[in-house]
Amino acid sequence: MTERFSFQIHATDGKARRGTITTPHGKVRTPAFMPVGTQGTVKAMFMDDVRSTGADVILGNTYHLMLRPGAERVARLGGLHAFSRWPHTILTDSGGFQVMSLAQIRKLTEKGVTFQSHIDGSRHEMTPERSIEIQGLLGSDIQMQLDECLRLPATAKEIDRAMRLSLRWAARSREKFVAMGGPEKGQGLYGIVQGGDDAALRAVSAAELASMPFEGYSIGGLAVGEPQDVMLQMLDIVCPLLPAEKPRYLMGVGTPDDIIKSVARGVDQFDCVMPTRAGRHGLAFTRFGKINLKNARHADDPRPLDEESSCPAARDYSRAYLHHLVRSGEALGAMLLTWANVAYYQSLMQGIRDAIEEGRYADFMAETSEAWARGDLQPL
Amino acid sequence: MTERFSFQIHATDGKARRGTITTPHGKVRTPAFMPVGTQGTVKAMFMDDVRSTGADVILGNTYHLMLRPGAERVARLGGLHAFSRWPHTILTDSGGFQVMSLAQIRKLTEKGVTFQSHIDGSRHEMTPERSIEIQGLLGSDIQMQLDECLRLPATAKEIDRAMRLSLRWAARSREKFVAMGGPEKGQGLYGIVQGGDDAALRAVSAAELASMPFEGYSIGGLAVGEPQDVMLQMLDIVCPLLPAEKPRYLMGVGTPDDIIKSVARGVDQFDCVMPTRAGRHGLAFTRFGKINLKNARHADDPRPLDEESSCPAARDYSRAYLHHLVRSGEALGAMLLTWANVAYYQSLMQGIRDAIEEGRYADFMAETSEAWARGDLQPL
Repeated sequence: MTERFSFQIHATDGKARRGTITTPHGKVRTPAFMPVGTQGTVKAMFMDDVRSTGADVILGNTYHLMLRPGAERVARLGGLHAFSRWPHTILTDSGGFQVMSLAQIRKLTEKGVTFQSHIDGSRHEMTPERSIEIQGLLGSDIQMQLDECLRLPATAKEIDRAMRLSLRWAARSREKFVAMGGPEKGQGLYGIVQGGDDAALRAVSAAELASMPFEGYSIGGLAVGEPQDVMLQMLDIVCPLLPAEKPRYLMGVGTPDDIIKSVARGVDQFDCVMPTRAGRHGLAFTRFGKINLKNARHADDPRPLDEESSCPAARDYSRAYLHHLVRSGEALGAMLLTWANVAYYQSLMQGIRDAIEEGRYADFMAETSEAWARGDLQPL
Repeated sequence: MTERFSFQIHATDGKARRGTITTPHGKVRTPAFMPVGTQGTVKAMFMDDVRSTGADVILGNTYHLMLRPGAERVARLGGLHAFSRWPHTILTDSGGFQVMSLAQIRKLTEKGVTFQSHIDGSRHEMTPERSIEIQGLLGSDIQMQLDECLRLPATAKEIDRAMRLSLRWAARSREKFVAMGGPEKGQGLYGIVQGGDDAALRAVSAAELASMPFEGYSIGGLAVGEPQDVMLQMLDIVCPLLPAEKPRYLMGVGTPDDIIKSVARGVDQFDCVMPTRAGRHGLAFTRFGKINLKNARHADDPRPLDEESSCPAARDYSRAYLHHLVRSGEALGAMLLTWANVAYYQSLMQGIRDAIEEGRYADFMAETSEAWARGDLQPL
């Protein structure tokens, strides 16, 4: 548990990379998908089951945790690893995205943002320094700089202004991270590339950040509604400008298809609420594509979601039972489908890693996409 | 799996009995608490965890299952054991209680009840014969006769009428159960004692049923809001009139205190939504009494609910974390507290069984009640 942050690349296949991030709380096999544990829990799952799916790292949300139960409280209780009983690697966001999407913003200045909590209306200030302080109190292994997340569409001028503010905040975040002893604790801090859907601004942001000493680099402000090809185009511009020896994290992405295509462009880490949220809404991600368990075609189907899955939720429960649970609004439906979805995402990542190691990533992508396109099992 | 229904009493202590019910799906140690699995799931729990708490039997609700997913469908899918992945003993109610509490009743006649589904308003008929047919389709090991469950308060005349109708339905239920081959399948059918809070009518009901060949006897229409001493008084009247060699099931009961006092009067089986429902509302049952995890006193408490519990949910998670989950409305809060509560009820039953075997049931009751009265741990 005294290892320091490091990243090793074991194999590449085209631009895809197979690596390992080492943190004080373990090793993260990359490309990695990080289940979202917003409030100190991956919704509707036991942490043991999250781990058993193959997850090496989960994401915690700084914004939510600072408001409830509070960063200082979590620190008194031994940090987020002990509090949430996840002894493996934790990555935290900076809180910036939620401040701008969930809270009522009062004022954005050079210094930071003041906002009101969406829970109780209480007033808070978020600065680059406070974000790093909170992430330190939580004990996060992989921390994010505070950035300004614009809502798109925005003018080029606005995107430029926000991107340059984020760069200045990156420098302040780094300074605070060092002052907090982050490097000595073995933690890592990532800078975040912004620039909206503007290729030139993305390039500026990436090049500027690359000149600063971060342990890794995030790509933010994508997967916010733009077409997939715009996102991939931005990756094509940004990834080559980032240091090859540092991990790259595409924030908030995405669908299985987004992931395989982004890996092909050199992305190493992903997070998304999609598998967990979909699980609470009766949707399953599988190697046959997306399956809606609410659909009446499943009502009499004794087959499991995927008899070849290693996840009990996907392998051992009939579709008829899952359909019944979802239709009845039973908690067990959400529990099982969340588990099955997180397991599917992790098995996808394992497939990606194996394929890169074996130099057959292009074939893997094609086969996987074809299987999704073939769709679900035929009705009995 | 070919055992036939039987009941053996291994030890008694006063009127308390320590026994074993054998069914085609296993052995049930009595006194037994049966977690409620209304719609083919014990809400917010995996069946493996239900089993690991020590439960030998769960209850399924005929009313809910006949409406959704439907008894014939469950039968086609292999019966309720296979459908819900609970391979151990299942007891079903007759559906009568829910028909009268949840559905809109259209007509109650000698033949049965017609009602409208609370889900979609569809019209259904429930007769003693149909109830047994449904329970047979579900594959229930321990079945209940259809009875008329009055809402109290009711006049003595009304209670008398409903009790006598229930006796006639008992005879019809038995006939259907035999016609369905229940005895050959090793299943059991229980008659249900009614009579409200009227001692004389309870005595008539118990004596009449005792003259009919049931595998066991239920005591219904109690724990519906009457004072505990009225319930216990009814047990004092009814239990001695029931065949000593047959199990006795007090339906819908109850609090831990109700249970220990009812066991002392000769009751062998219980079911109640209390541990599961309370778990979804932030309440924990423990040997220290009932604990409200919503209370701010737990916000900074690193201690578990009960460090001596054998249940991971009660033993391994801090009160601070449980408090946070409950306050945040996270599913994991309900999952953990439901598990902890079912485990507490099962550990209480194990304590009851051990005490009866060892002839110290009166002491056990006194010690257990004292511990509840002493209350929760002092704040740190």
